[in-house]
Amino acid sequence: MADTDWGALAQHWLDRLAECSEAGPGVTRLPFTPEHRRVLRVLTELMEQAGLAVRLDAAGTLIGRLDRTGGAPTLLLGSHQDSVREGGAYDGIMGVVLPVLALMKLNRDGVKLPFAVEVLAFADEEGVRFPTALMGPRALAGTFDMAALDLRDRDGITLRRAMEDFGLKPDALPGLRRDAAKVIGWVEIHLEQGPVLEAAGRNIGIVTGICGIERHMVTLTGKAAHAGTAPMHLRRDALAGAADLIQAAETLARETDGVLATVGALQVRPGVVNAVPGEVALTLEIRAPDDSVREWAGATLTQAAHDIANRRGLGLDIACTYAQPATPCSPQIIESLSNAVAAGNREAPPLIASGATHDTSAIAGLCPVGMVFTACRDGVSHHPDECVEEVAMSAGIMTLERFLIQFQLTDCPAA
Amino acid sequence: MADTDWGALAQHWLDRLAECSEAGPGVTRLPFTPEHRRVLRVLTELMEQAGLAVRLDAAGTLIGRLDRTGGAPTLLLGSHQDSVREGGAYDGIMGVVLPVLALMKLNRDGVKLPFAVEVLAFADEEGVRFPTALMGPRALAGTFDMAALDLRDRDGITLRRAMEDFGLKPDALPGLRRDAAKVIGWVEIHLEQGPVLEAAGRNIGIVTGICGIERHMVTLTGKAAHAGTAPMHLRRDALAGAADLIQAAETLARETDGVLATVGALQVRPGVVNAVPGEVALTLEIRAPDDSVREWAGATLTQAAHDIANRRGLGLDIACTYAQPATPCSPQIIESLSNAVAAGNREAPPLIASGATHDTSAIAGLCPVGMVFTACRDGVSHHPDECVEEVAMSAGIMTLERFLIQFQLTDCPAA
Repeated sequence: MADTDWGALAQHWLDRLAECSEAGPGVTRLPFTPEHRRVLRVLTELMEQAGLAVRLDAAGTLIGRLDRTGGAPTLLLGSHQDSVREGGAYDGIMGVVLPVLALMKLNRDGVKLPFAVEVLAFADEEGVRFPTALMGPRALAGTFDMAALDLRDRDGITLRRAMEDFGLKPDALPGLRRDAAKVIGWVEIHLEQGPVLEAAGRNIGIVTGICGIERHMVTLTGKAAHAGTAPMHLRRDALAGAADLIQAAETLARETDGVLATVGALQVRPGVVNAVPGEVALTLEIRAPDDSVREWAGATLTQAAHDIANRRGLGLDIACTYAQPATPCSPQIIESLSNAVAAGNREAPPLIASGATHDTSAIAGLCPVGMVFTACRDGVSHHPDECVEEVAMSAGIMTLERFLIQFQLTDCPAA
Repeated sequence: MADTDWGALAQHWLDRLAECSEAGPGVTRLPFTPEHRRVLRVLTELMEQAGLAVRLDAAGTLIGRLDRTGGAPTLLLGSHQDSVREGGAYDGIMGVVLPVLALMKLNRDGVKLPFAVEVLAFADEEGVRFPTALMGPRALAGTFDMAALDLRDRDGITLRRAMEDFGLKPDALPGLRRDAAKVIGWVEIHLEQGPVLEAAGRNIGIVTGICGIERHMVTLTGKAAHAGTAPMHLRRDALAGAADLIQAAETLARETDGVLATVGALQVRPGVVNAVPGEVALTLEIRAPDDSVREWAGATLTQAAHDIANRRGLGLDIACTYAQPATPCSPQIIESLSNAVAAGNREAPPLIASGATHDTSAIAGLCPVGMVFTACRDGVSHHPDECVEEVAMSAGIMTLERFLIQFQLTDCPAA
């Protein structure tokens, strides 16, 4: 079987898995639903074809295990089965299919790994059905908050009830916690959900870490006034102040490596054609792979907002509403994954930070982590048009296979 | 009676007139309503006390006429009786009270004018009840469009029906057109509705003209993207482009005498904290007393929008949705009014352009026009807190009186 055939095989399985969806455009597959049940059947079939022993844990995580060592520590691979509403056929689920195919290829090539491997398909990463997410990896890391079981979906069904109806035992969740000494690490392969690899003409990138995120709610208060009677020099225009802050955020992020700054939401009051805006509320989000850089950016833009408000005679209210620290990937896993890419095409892969959160963020509480990105057509994700080319999936499978083979030759970080 | 007592007398009448309002905060007095009926009774009482002959024309304009000449041309003074919803006690109605009191004072002082004078209280300037306005002055100028009679208020009542129910004969409107040869000019006194006079410490300003207005609807289209996965240099952020345009408009207006530029309304899509904005729709309004300057500003900012869109890879749709030419005031009336102010306090008054539209704009089709502004506390208007100090109203009455006296000594522009 040629390398390129593995990409086609991945596409074949992803097509079958995409059928496990609610009706409508794209893929809609929420956790603990009939669609989830159907996808588990297809994944089980795939995993069994690859020679994995399959089971479902109490968090609804499907686990395919390959262990020819009789008790060596385990390397974890995987991603999530669920999608957003009307999402694509690759986000999450591709990160289950590709490692299973890599193990299938290893088996066909007759390679025996000196450690156990598990491929995990977590139930819920997107957090679409319930106002929580990442239960599967958190359960493994021992960081799942049991209070989340009382959260309800939009039909009023609690997470606990949904899991029980799915045949799971929520009270067994604390028992899922893994012994860190028996876990070597975690590797997730995921589509980039952005344009960087495509723009660089590369199929595969290695993730250096998952960005920390902070969000600020900013309200600038000026004075609403008649657009015909308020002279320019006497105006206190909240929207003009907001424009200054939008530019300050963009300039800082463009000039500071790794920092992303976004003003995504903005409301103007009174918001009519002939009134000088009296109040603007906006969101400012900052992401960076380095927490100290992110915190510096947040403090710098907060100071910029104060300076703008003072200069323009505006009132300012700025409050940090959310902060999540960065998750650095293991330098050893980054190196091993990079070597695996370089061994294939003699060129080191792009190293990029993940601006989005992934299962990897949650499982980092358990073990060293790594991530592989595949290129993503037009940077589109969370949309029916989401697409990963077969050539990129094939490269992903080869990268994982070489990584697994080479990994036995290096020290296991936690072994 | 001391000069200051005339300000107190104006306040007394304005307090009585403010009672002619719907219930609720401030003044709500819409045309052809019971409140309008009540205010006409009070105004009639005031006009008759001043020695004016009072009648109501077919447009619902209350007219108080003083003519001791037996056929000389007429100078028109006045403003409108109506308010916005929950508006103030001065906007419009003060421009009826002050000229009546000026005539009362002239009569008490024994002055006989060599021309006729009429004080007009137009029914509808604000355009709150019906989607039209300025019927009274347009009828006098012969520019009223009879089709507007079919427009309806929010209860489905047509303007024609509302007028008929008020006892008026809409079909007589064309007959209201005045013979321009028999009208000397028009002078309106109105609160500034802005902060300029107050900031300058002056009670009275003379208006050089009413600004022309143009409005543009601007849509910038970029690409919505995940705020965590779209790198800064690959973003096509519609809101960042809008910020550039907001700043360009503000800078141009600050640097160009007389130009006001306002981005008053702005909507962002998708408008969520973690998405790069893909589309922004905003309004751009430009006002200037000189039409060629306004048109230059509009063209310059349109070009700036194109430059911003090109630089940022954004789509741009920009359309002029409204344009109204400027109404210059008569140089002769400006000079006469300025002399009247200077004669009172030995200091020439501030000359300012009116950014807002007034009855003056519509009656300019009939005759030379002039306007006087009074200072306005905190620049507040169209609000229950709207306030003109008695000292400013007193100065307004004195200005009008001196203007009327001096005006007989100069050539009448159209006489």
